[in-house]
Amino acid sequence: MIIKAVVWGENVHEQTNQIVADLYPDGMHGEIAAALNAAGGITATTATLRDPEHGLSEDRLADTDVLLWWGHAAHGDVSDEIVERVADHVNAGMGLILLHSAHFAKIFKRLMGTPCNLTWREAGERERLWVTSRNHPIAAGLPDHFELEHEEMYGEPFGVPEPLETVFLSWFPGGEVFRSGLPHKRGAGTVFYFPPGHEPYPTSPDANVPRVLATP
Amino acid sequence: MIIKAVVWGENVHEQTNQIVADLYPDGMHGEIAAALNAAGGITATTATLRDPEHGLSEDRLADTDVLLWWGHAAHGDVSDEIVERVADHVNAGMGLILLHSAHFAKIFKRLMGTPCNLTWREAGERERLWVTSRNHPIAAGLPDHFELEHEEMYGEPFGVPEPLETVFLSWFPGGEVFRSGLPHKRGAGTVFYFPPGHEPYPTSPDANVPRVLATP
Amino acid sequence: MIIKAVVWGENVHEQTNQIVADLYPDGMHGEIAAALNAAGGITATTATLRDPEHGLSEDRLADTDVLLWWGHAAHGDVSDEIVERVADHVNAGMGLILLHSAHFAKIFKRLMGTPCNLTWREAGERERLWVTSRNHPIAAGLPDHFELEHEEMYGEPFGVPEPLETVFLSWFPGGEVFRSGLPHKRGAGTVFYFPPGHEPYPTSPDANVPRVLATP
Amino acid sequence: MIIKAVVWGENVHEQTNQIVADLYPDGMHGEIAAALNAAGGITATTATLRDPEHGLSEDRLADTDVLLWWGHAAHGDVSDEIVERVADHVNAGMGLILLHSAHFAKIFKRLMGTPCNLTWREAGERERLWVTSRNHPIAAGLPDHFELEHEEMYGEPFGVPEPLETVFLSWFPGGEVFRSGLPHKRGAGTVFYFPPGHEPYPTSPDANVPRVLATP
Repeated sequence: MIIKAVVWGENVHEQTNQIVADLYPDGMHGEIAAALNAAGGITATTATLRDPEHGLSEDRLADTDVLLWWGHAAHGDVSDEIVERVADHVNAGMGLILLHSAHFAKIFKRLMGTPCNLTWREAGERERLWVTSRNHPIAAGLPDHFELEHEEMYGEPFGVPEPLETVFLSWFPGGEVFRSGLPHKRGAGTVFYFPPGHEPYPTSPDANVPRVLATP
Repeated sequence: MIIKAVVWGENVHEQTNQIVADLYPDGMHGEIAAALNAAGGITATTATLRDPEHGLSEDRLADTDVLLWWGHAAHGDVSDEIVERVADHVNAGMGLILLHSAHFAKIFKRLMGTPCNLTWREAGERERLWVTSRNHPIAAGLPDHFELEHEEMYGEPFGVPEPLETVFLSWFPGGEVFRSGLPHKRGAGTVFYFPPGHEPYPTSPDANVPRVLATP
Repeated sequence: MIIKAVVWGENVHEQTNQIVADLYPDGMHGEIAAALNAAGGITATTATLRDPEHGLSEDRLADTDVLLWWGHAAHGDVSDEIVERVADHVNAGMGLILLHSAHFAKIFKRLMGTPCNLTWREAGERERLWVTSRNHPIAAGLPDHFELEHEEMYGEPFGVPEPLETVFLSWFPGGEVFRSGLPHKRGAGTVFYFPPGHEPYPTSPDANVPRVLATP
Repeated sequence: MIIKAVVWGENVHEQTNQIVADLYPDGMHGEIAAALNAAGGITATTATLRDPEHGLSEDRLADTDVLLWWGHAAHGDVSDEIVERVADHVNAGMGLILLHSAHFAKIFKRLMGTPCNLTWREAGERERLWVTSRNHPIAAGLPDHFELEHEEMYGEPFGVPEPLETVFLSWFPGGEVFRSGLPHKRGAGTVFYFPPGHEPYPTSPDANVPRVLATP
């Protein structure tokens, strides 16, 4: 069975930040979709904030198994109507993976019911992710821990409901920890927050990240 | 320590349905508040939909430990601004108990992130509640099961996230079951849904119901 | 990928009760294995109490993805050494499905850490199972509820730890309810208790039961 | 209401290690009991491995609300009969707090059903504990995080079942993280594992540790 994925990106930093534009000529959403298509068993397409209906029409969502959401600078520009539409599709069974700063996306706060606040520091730090639930499908084949060299620090306290399981825990050199792989079910759909992917720090070189994203 | 409770009621059926008006001359909210005040250790006051700010000003919520919410016919009349205000106070630590048809209250759907749908039938049926988590504080001192004679049937599937624990399960003679005591944490606050209390069927005669409501 | 399943049966009632022997000429374990083999994608074999090492040698368990356990009359005859061996394999990733009276099997109590007590009544009653977690893989494709005509009643309170999710709830005409589909993770393995299957009441005619058993 | 606590200690290191003997003239169990008695609302007594029935007679356990268990070097010397007795009392409602190396105590493995393995390193490192569930009673009044100067490192992966909530997360300078405050319910009792307290590194100076232990 082929999983149908849509990678949604704001496509803002790519237009306004030359470093980001150079790193991701097809946009971060394009890069993520390419990694998913390369993983096998997945057909990934892209959608962005500036598309009509943000690229998330009723018909397209009805034909989507998993939606990946990358947002950071323009959460407020996402239409409330589209947020409700996405929430309806999650409750009806669509998977939703929130990437990086999407902890503050309207759709994540809408589905969690909490402020989704966290502490943060942008210093290009090493992040070490520990696997704490070995038999969760999303951790299949991963080592006990793996590292990303240049990440933004996201730390506890993290204002989300208790997840079904804590799948990853992150360690940062500055003394912080973070529950960095959290599955929540909402209706018949699963919501998974996974923070790596700060825009000027390309995480794709680490083979473990696309492996995580390609799982559901 | 005295727990400060506010019992919020729509106060709609009491004005429009003579049976309800006769059963609850002080309103259902007034009856519940009286039962809580009689329980000891609690100071309960009331608030209703028609009060300014629905009786839920910032100052009053800041001075409230637990808010009990009874709603059925007028969910749509509750202001979105007040819903956000109550959600903020729950996330900051206020307890919230949803009674009866409040599974469809805006504030419950806002905090759960799901449609909160269920099946139902109004036939004045016997409901038997089984205690499935004996050491949850809310079940302290309750027998293995207890019955309410004339309840509306609320049944599975119930569209809410998995709770921290399933504290009560209800049995109905028509073949339905229902997870009828569900604690969810949201931020620093606990949300508890407890369905007994259909308006024309007075449940207060059963001593176990006020015992549950008086717990937090 | 083919799932390698072993169906373990006491094979006691089949030898001592003529009704059971006539109903299941190949034993209940044989009948269950045949249903799994017919489901596709599974290779199921059998093992019984009287086999050397109860049919559960180190080598065989190392080559098993899922072990199904049917026990009722002879829990005390199972060797403690084999129980520890099975527990080790579950913690290392093997799935374990406990059927019917296996709630009192040594291996289930060993993995739960609780007495696993429940209430029961043998009266050939109708059992209605409601699906309470629609997107759990084990409930895939099932209707909202389905019925088994002649089951032993198993009811709350059920002395097990809170599961990751409550997947099924059972209703009985006598006024009882039961959490009848409970996944617990232990180490890298999943343990799933599913009670249908009282020996003189053949449940196999209902197509939904093999569908549940064939899932993991 | 006064909480009746028993602090159980192996009392082995105190007899064999001069550093430990000098640090804790009344034994670590005596020091912990004194801190609890000083906290108010608690009456704490002690019991040790060498006492008859390890100091845990049926009558004494029947009169105990919370048992604190400190063990490290002599897990194998604890009688299986006493372990079963303690497990029965937990399932019947007694609280159990496991300290430091008690993750490998027979009683903890008996109640978890898993190997309870973890990674470790003894190097007198700084441990920073983050509070991840603010409204859990055991975290009441604690700051966002607090530090212990000289602890043994205990790290993930930690082989226990998913807890009801993750209350504390620990950070270590060497790159490790640990779920260091985990409540599990077993029957009517709550089991709480809390790792600080390596024998040659006195943690008592930090006021937050007795605050945690005094909570239940």
